Amino acid sequence: MALKLIGTPKSSCTLKVLLTLAEKGISDYRFIDIDLMKGEQKLPGYLAKQPFGVVPILEDGDISLYESRAICRYLAKKYENLGTALIPDLSDLKTMGHFEQWASVEMANFDALARPLQWEVIFKPLAGEPKNEQLIHSLVDTLAQKLDVYDKAILAEQKYMAGNTFSIVDIFYMPLMSYLFRMGFGDMITDRPNVKAWWESEKPTAPPQQQSTSA
Amino acid sequence: MALKLIGTPKSSCTLKVLLTLAEKGISDYRFIDIDLMKGEQKLPGYLAKQPFGVVPILEDGDISLYESRAICRYLAKKYENLGTALIPDLSDLKTMGHFEQWASVEMANFDALARPLQWEVIFKPLAGEPKNEQLIHSLVDTLAQKLDVYDKAILAEQKYMAGNTFSIVDIFYMPLMSYLFRMGFGDMITDRPNVKAWWESEKPTAPPQQQSTSA
Repeated sequence: MALKLIGTPKSSCTLKVLLTLAEKGISDYRFIDIDLMKGEQKLPGYLAKQPFGVVPILEDGDISLYESRAICRYLAKKYENLGTALIPDLSDLKTMGHFEQWASVEMANFDALARPLQWEVIFKPLAGEPKNEQLIHSLVDTLAQKLDVYDKAILAEQKYMAGNTFSIVDIFYMPLMSYLFRMGFGDMITDRPNVKAWWESEKPTAPPQQQSTSA
Repeated sequence: MALKLIGTPKSSCTLKVLLTLAEKGISDYRFIDIDLMKGEQKLPGYLAKQPFGVVPILEDGDISLYESRAICRYLAKKYENLGTALIPDLSDLKTMGHFEQWASVEMANFDALARPLQWEVIFKPLAGEPKNEQLIHSLVDTLAQKLDVYDKAILAEQKYMAGNTFSIVDIFYMPLMSYLFRMGFGDMITDRPNVKAWWESEKPTAPPQQQSTSA
């Protein structure tokens, strides 16, 4: 049975899964493209699969999964022999510890700032709500400090976000990094030489052809 | 060589590691208790180990690790045959996918709200900064909505935060859940029967005796 992915390419979390599928060269899946602005993710059928009412959701036979990073890990392991190897050998204790460190760094130091920034700058205006300029300023300032650490202490020492090998952790950063450019904050990336080198070194493969089905 | 843990029991992230060690029955470690209010975590020696300047940090021989959840995973795996089993068999694809889903749910739906709430209510006053009452109201409101989902759709179906077995994911919640009581928001837990049952069912073992060394 083919995979079924419920989400939308407008969602940075869905994009992580699409990029993982692309790196694995998998195109044999059904994509249910739902309209977040119409609140389709809150329909009872989707809430039964994802009670917090967000996307993406993956269905693989009798397995139903949510949370984009969990879905990416699942796909990376299920298809470990296909396409790009996206997770190191986690049976090695030291490798596992460091991989999990870098995976947590993404959520704690990047997503925790870039996601509310995206909310303020992109989604609140779309919903007709006023932006909180003070919060935007604070988020940008803190994110800039974190990116300094990435530039001077992390990406100065290793090529990728989880060591010297490309992995799903790099994919986890990509959609919101891309949004920084769309929000007019691209210089936060391009002004930092090691962050810039990381960003420019990695072009994910094009999303594969998929059978898109509107929900 | 014994483990070395750098942190402070006042830090909810350090507490996660202390609780993991306690569940494993491990007391043979050296605890470097540093003073966050004096900014000791920003001293060059610690910044070399944790470039974002936060705690905890674990050292185990030649392995140096940061990010509390990564450290807990490392300890749970290293000592998988000791004390409480804290991680399921992640070599099983379906088990791994669901475990990672529940681990991500903690960061996305609980930590992402309870941590900035702790910052506003506890740490800003300690630093002499004014609380942002509007932000507090918004965080409490959103956290209450998320806890409704935990109550009605998650903990109504499973006993623990990552399924029907106690795991490190339960430990991940405990320190900030405990802070909700200290902040005067304990009724967010006790007013929700399934969240209350989960909270009251789980008493972590007492932290073990350890050799505490001030830095």
